[in-house]
Amino acid sequence: MNFPSKILEKAVEAIASLPGIGKKTALRLALHLIYDDSDKASRLADAIVGLKSEIKFCNICHTLADGEVCDICKSTTRSNHVLCVVENIRDLLAIEDTGQFFGKYHVLGGLISPLEGVGPSDLNIDSLVDRVKRDEVEELIMAISPTIEGETTIFYISKLLKDLPVKISTIARGVAFGGDLEYADEFTLGKSIQARIPYTRTR
Amino acid sequence: MNFPSKILEKAVEAIASLPGIGKKTALRLALHLIYDDSDKASRLADAIVGLKSEIKFCNICHTLADGEVCDICKSTTRSNHVLCVVENIRDLLAIEDTGQFFGKYHVLGGLISPLEGVGPSDLNIDSLVDRVKRDEVEELIMAISPTIEGETTIFYISKLLKDLPVKISTIARGVAFGGDLEYADEFTLGKSIQARIPYTRTR
Repeated sequence: MNFPSKILEKAVEAIASLPGIGKKTALRLALHLIYDDSDKASRLADAIVGLKSEIKFCNICHTLADGEVCDICKSTTRSNHVLCVVENIRDLLAIEDTGQFFGKYHVLGGLISPLEGVGPSDLNIDSLVDRVKRDEVEELIMAISPTIEGETTIFYISKLLKDLPVKISTIARGVAFGGDLEYADEFTLGKSIQARIPYTRTR
Repeated sequence: MNFPSKILEKAVEAIASLPGIGKKTALRLALHLIYDDSDKASRLADAIVGLKSEIKFCNICHTLADGEVCDICKSTTRSNHVLCVVENIRDLLAIEDTGQFFGKYHVLGGLISPLEGVGPSDLNIDSLVDRVKRDEVEELIMAISPTIEGETTIFYISKLLKDLPVKISTIARGVAFGGDLEYADEFTLGKSIQARIPYTRTR
């Protein structure tokens, strides 16, 4: 594409560098911003800069936070004794969306996957064990996608915690095997939190 | 959605304010920017700021430009004697993409539409007439979407120029009637530039 303006070309290229956005969509968005009379463009630019410069990871649950501790961990109305263990922040937000969970979270930052070279030490598992001991956690809800890696991770954590007085449950398998938790609808995901089942080790 | 971080929430809202981008896509893009190690986010923010603060409109053809005159009007290898008249910048870029046009452009900034209260004085028509006189333009190619408003605009301009020695042609009607020029594929649009037909007034 020959652009009459280098500034426009640069903007279209920057927008099209985002995943799932092609050149035509990028052009449409760039022109939308140019012709928009509100302060949408400057708000967007500020928000993007903020994402990179200001955002931190919560010291307790490892989700994104504005300061040292995230808003969910700071909450005094949510139980410290029930933890929902998730793979990543998208899964945390998907569960928050259901409105069915009133405890706190722990973000692993991935799943154990020998094929991809991800071992337990690459994940936030040590801090989970510390939390279970320190906060006298009564129940861990494993809201992990039901894949081989997910099952392996649940098995590993349940083994680490076998001598502690904590109940481990997994969300009900309303989510299809091999499916992606993030794309489950709110109702299915909400039900699967309510109908969670105790975890029984098979190995 | 309950976000653990206000910064993330603000960014998701700003991205989701763009047309055609929902909250889930916005969240995916925000997380992509957070986890991206390159300077993609700052380049994107700079480009968006540049769009609003630095971009201008070309004094000659009214497209977007970095300075007073756009790169296409500045070109010395393109003919000044053949002008392609388009409704907007998206259409200009769609024609540039075909690689079939080697003259210059004139962006009207809309089409005559009495229903929407857009008259000839709201469009860049006076400057088109001046250009035709000043640059001794030999041919005007009307690359206007074949709609009622498009036909009205072509008719109006052809009437204004009837005493000047300029040939007026329209792009071949390879584009379906009532269709949107912007979405035509490059081949059809390229062919329609090559097979342009002289404009005959019926009224």
